[in-house]
Order: sequence, then structure tokens, then C-alpha cells
Amino acid sequence: MNPPRALTVAVVGATGVVGQEFLRILEERAFPVKRLVALASKRSVGRHVTFAGEEVAVEDLDETDFGGVDVAFFSAGGDRSLEHAPRAAQAGALVVDNSSAFRMDPDVPLVVPQVNAHRALEHRGIIANPNCSTILLVMALAPLHRHVPVRRVVCSTYQAVSGSGAEALAELEAQGEASREGRPLEARVYPQPIHANVIPFVQAFGEDAITLEEWKLVHETRRLLEEPDFAVTATCVRVPVLRAHSEAVNVEFERPVSPAEVRRWLAEAPGVRVVDDPDTLAFPTPRDAEGGDDVLVGRIRRDPSRDTAVDLFLAGDQVRKGAALNAVEIAEAVLVSPVGSPPGRDPIP
Amino acid sequence: MNPPRALTVAVVGATGVVGQEFLRILEERAFPVKRLVALASKRSVGRHVTFAGEEVAVEDLDETDFGGVDVAFFSAGGDRSLEHAPRAAQAGALVVDNSSAFRMDPDVPLVVPQVNAHRALEHRGIIANPNCSTILLVMALAPLHRHVPVRRVVCSTYQAVSGSGAEALAELEAQGEASREGRPLEARVYPQPIHANVIPFVQAFGEDAITLEEWKLVHETRRLLEEPDFAVTATCVRVPVLRAHSEAVNVEFERPVSPAEVRRWLAEAPGVRVVDDPDTLAFPTPRDAEGGDDVLVGRIRRDPSRDTAVDLFLAGDQVRKGAALNAVEIAEAVLVSPVGSPPGRDPIP
Repeated sequence: MNPPRALTVAVVGATGVVGQEFLRILEERAFPVKRLVALASKRSVGRHVTFAGEEVAVEDLDETDFGGVDVAFFSAGGDRSLEHAPRAAQAGALVVDNSSAFRMDPDVPLVVPQVNAHRALEHRGIIANPNCSTILLVMALAPLHRHVPVRRVVCSTYQAVSGSGAEALAELEAQGEASREGRPLEARVYPQPIHANVIPFVQAFGEDAITLEEWKLVHETRRLLEEPDFAVTATCVRVPVLRAHSEAVNVEFERPVSPAEVRRWLAEAPGVRVVDDPDTLAFPTPRDAEGGDDVLVGRIRRDPSRDTAVDLFLAGDQVRKGAALNAVEIAEAVLVSPVGSPPGRDPIP
Repeated sequence: MNPPRALTVAVVGATGVVGQEFLRILEERAFPVKRLVALASKRSVGRHVTFAGEEVAVEDLDETDFGGVDVAFFSAGGDRSLEHAPRAAQAGALVVDNSSAFRMDPDVPLVVPQVNAHRALEHRGIIANPNCSTILLVMALAPLHRHVPVRRVVCSTYQAVSGSGAEALAELEAQGEASREGRPLEARVYPQPIHANVIPFVQAFGEDAITLEEWKLVHETRRLLEEPDFAVTATCVRVPVLRAHSEAVNVEFERPVSPAEVRRWLAEAPGVRVVDDPDTLAFPTPRDAEGGDDVLVGRIRRDPSRDTAVDLFLAGDQVRKGAALNAVEIAEAVLVSPVGSPPGRDPIP
């Protein structure tokens, strides 16, 4: 491995929930940043973000030409990615895009480094960061599927409001206050109040009355596992939790598998932490996952309905492993520590 | 049907969340109450409850002999039911017991009137009210299973804190306040704070690291459907919602079934209301189920992983249909309007 060279890093959507987390994670991991470029829409110009103890002025995405940018993390919505990611890549930046714009594009790798890091090296300038719920699911699923083929997955999510951005976090807080004061709860981000509620509807409806979020879990899981017909169904539900997603997952294998085997395979999986002990009431919760890097997996147990299936429960920080952390890990896999890249290959695209 | 005669009704646990709901429901439904007896433990003696506009003094359960009581609704925990329900039945009362004490007792019918009202008439003095999550699940499942045999169910719950009683409701509120004021959150009822969290652990762990709540869903569903080997698995999760439970349910049938068929069968099912329209963003939520009698079912859609399966989402008031309402309906089925009872049979046990 060559020593990492210092890089010019752009964060697009730098003032958002995920953008802010990009800055924290780049610092925490000592990502080799020579210069940080903070980009956002016109209305954020004039604001500053903090990186490595310094104030960085937010620049206008529309006016930026990306010349000299080595890596650009995009987290400003699909429309902005569609418009600006190709020209950033054209200008020579490695784009890691957190939107859904390119995730099903066959020319754009979809990557969770612990699952398919090798695909990152096939990029043509853009790499897609998967949907948050899908990243968490696949972190637990891929290690199992490598040991014994998984035949079918039934997944129910418990998704934090951070997935809908800062406005949703503010709405949840305002609803809590209104409820305490006996005022009516106002809902703008979601079709109903999320305070003291759960909403079985994430994002928008798609084909067959399945939501887009549920379809992402189906299609992106298939792509990440490289199993075009992988059988997975999901119900995606928003819950009044701040920033970690949880998932109840039923995993049906090709043959009977014991909970002890599943526990062992997950204990060996990078980025996964098994939290699973009935005696000490240890199980994953979004509170415990918040702020951490690992996907917590527990409640691993036999399925009384089928001897080839196992039930489990997982939780992971939606803003970190579900978004910014996974994207930074993708960039690291390509630029800093090119796992599995051929010797002598230039790690900069 | 004979005109209902006026009855002496005892509510055991009258000061609790479910006990209070019993009083409301008996009033709302004009249950033929001649005299209401409010019973609780010694420490509640001296308190009063309100019924039909009158104050009723709480009496000591230990000192009550149940002579002259026609029906006794028990909701004071399994230990009190085990101790006092048999002697209430002995004294001639019909006991409808909301605890888990007798639910798997082959001499005690386990009843959801919309599902197996006929079993209520086989009672020997005690009828068991099922677990709250199980009642809601079976309300949706039984009508489907009658049309096309269901082969397997995977259920993930989103359970309100009311299921843990008034103390849990107070704890959730106190944690909300502590969070707002930046104080540490204290958890006593649950092993972790439930505010802004979900906890994949309800009640206690049982065999095979499956919780007692999850086992109830398995065993009580089998009993209610009269299918001793019915294949069902569940993950039971507590969420920061006040009093309606929700469930994401994957239902696998013997043969392919369309979402339209499922929607039609559920629309015809008593006690079920289909709330399911992507165009108007209509789907069940615990907020909408709160205070109502119906189990709301929606998000009815094909399962992309299996053509014999359908996904759905349901919500129902845990304190009402999940507890007090179902118990009152059981009593009505036996005492007031004996559905399916042979003519001439004395409806009073």
C-alpha cells in the first residue's frame, strides 16, 4: 500500500444532517484531507461549517467546477446528484453519491465495503452509496449468505426520523412540545404526527402499493449480494427515534442452521457487533447504536415456524453506517487503502 | 334472544389502565349493569372509581366473596387471577380473565368472539382473554385462514407502553421531560429508556431465547385458530407509543392469493376496518387506532419474495380490543347475546 496522499475533499450538502456527519467522520478517521470544500445550494451560501477546528465558508454548488477535487461526497438529494455528480466525475473527482440517483445504474457500482469492496474498483467516476436500511440489512445478511445460502428474508424496519433530514428532527421535537402543552400536533414532513406514533410509509408509494423504500430494500439487496432473484420482502415503518434504524429480520436458509452458528458467523463479520445475551438483557437498540460505527445484531434465535429459519434484530446509526460512514469507507477502499486493488494500480481515478 | 337481565358486574383491578377502560366500555356499550363492584388490592382501598356518573368505592379483593356477582372481569395480573378467579367462578360468577394465567389451560376457553365465539359457551366458569398482540393478529388472520389456508406467518410488533400499565406511561412521559431538560433518562419499567428508542424485548425471556410475549403469539394463535401446528414466528418490540399496538405481518397462503382478495375478505370481517389507499396515503397507524374498537388493516400488497404470500400492516387499541373490549365482548357473547348458543339454554352459567 502506498502512503495516502493528501486529498482535496468536497462535501456536497455540507449543512445537512448527513453532510455534517461527513465532516465529523473525515476528522475522526483522519481521512487525508488537504483541503475541504463545503458545497450546498445558493440559500446556504454565507453560512460556515466547522472542519478540523476551522471555519469553512459554504460555496455554491452551481458555481463550483470541481477542478482539483479528488473526492466528492454527495448528499444533497437525487436531483442535485443527477445534475452535478457526472460533471464532478468528469472533472476528475471520485464521486461517492448518497442519493438513490445512480444506485440501479449498471455502470455505477453500489458498494458496502465489508460486502463487495472489489466492486468499488470498477467505478467510472461515480460510486453509489446504498439506501440506509439496505446497508444495515446487508451487513448482517452477507456474512450469513456466504456460509449457507439464504433463501428468503422477511424484514420489518423501525426507521429513525434522521432519514428525513433536519426538518423531520425539528418536527418530532416540536410535536413533543405541542403534545406536552396540549396543543394540536402539526405534521408537514410526514403525513401524520410521528410523535407517539409509528407510520408504515416511508418516502412514497411505488409499483404494487409497495413503497420506494421497500423496493430499495429489495433491489439494492439483490445488487449488493449479486443475486438478481434474491427473495426479500420488507415493511418499512417510521418510528419516533432520532437517528438509528432497527430491523426485525427473518432469515430462511437453504438448510437448517443453528442460532449458535449465526452468532459465530456474525461475530467474525467486520463492522458487525453481536449484542445478544438474554441473561444480561443484552440486545440491540437504536439508543445503543447511536453514534457508533458497528451494526449491532442480537435476538438471534430459532424460528418456531420453520427449522431452516432464524430470527434476529439489528440496529445501526442511520446517519453513520447508513450514510456518511459507509460513503467514507467506500472512498477509503478506493483512494486510501485499496483493498484488493492490483499492485501498481493508481488508486486515484 | 332473551332480553338481557340486569347483572352485578365486578371489575378486578379497577384502578389500573385496563380496569378503567372496562368501566368506560361497560358504559359505552350499555352493558346491563345492575351493580358495579370495583375491586383492587388493599393499597387501593379508600380510592373511588367513576361508573355511570357515580362514585364507586374500591373494595378489597382479598375480602370479597363474589356471592351474587354475575360476571367478574379480572385484570390484576396472573398471580391474583390464579388465586381469586377460581373462587369467583365457584361462587357463580362468569370470570373473564385478562391475565395469561389460564390461557393455555385446556379446561378454559381462549376466546376472540369474532373468531371462535362458540368456544365461549363451553366454559366452566372461567374464560381467558388472549394476549393483546395475539388478539389483533388473529382478528386479521382468522378471516383469511377461513378463505384460503394460511401456511406461515412472520410477525413483527410495534407495541405501545400501555401494555406495561400506568407506571410505564408515566415513565415514558418523565423520560420525555428529562430529555428536553437535558437530564439523564431513568428507566425502571423497561431495561432501557423507551423515549426515542425501541426495545426488542417484551416481558421476559423464555425457552430458546424467545420472549414470553413472542411465545404467546405462537401458542395462543395456534389455540385460537385451532391449528396445533400453525407456523408463526414473531419479534415483539416495544415502541414509544401510548396505547395502540401495530404489527407488520407476512402471511403465506397455501396457494397464490391476490391483495384484492385479501382486502375483500378483510372488508367483510367483523371488527376489522380496511384502511388502505396509497392515493390518499391511507394506512393504519396507532394514532388512528387509539380509542377505536376496530382493528385497522392496510398496506395490503403482494410479497415480492413469494407469490403465495401477502404483506400487511395492522393497528389496534391495546387497552380496548387488545384487552377490555375483547373481554366485554366475550361476556356479551355468553350472557347478553349468546351467539350460536342452543335455544333454551340458560345464558347464565
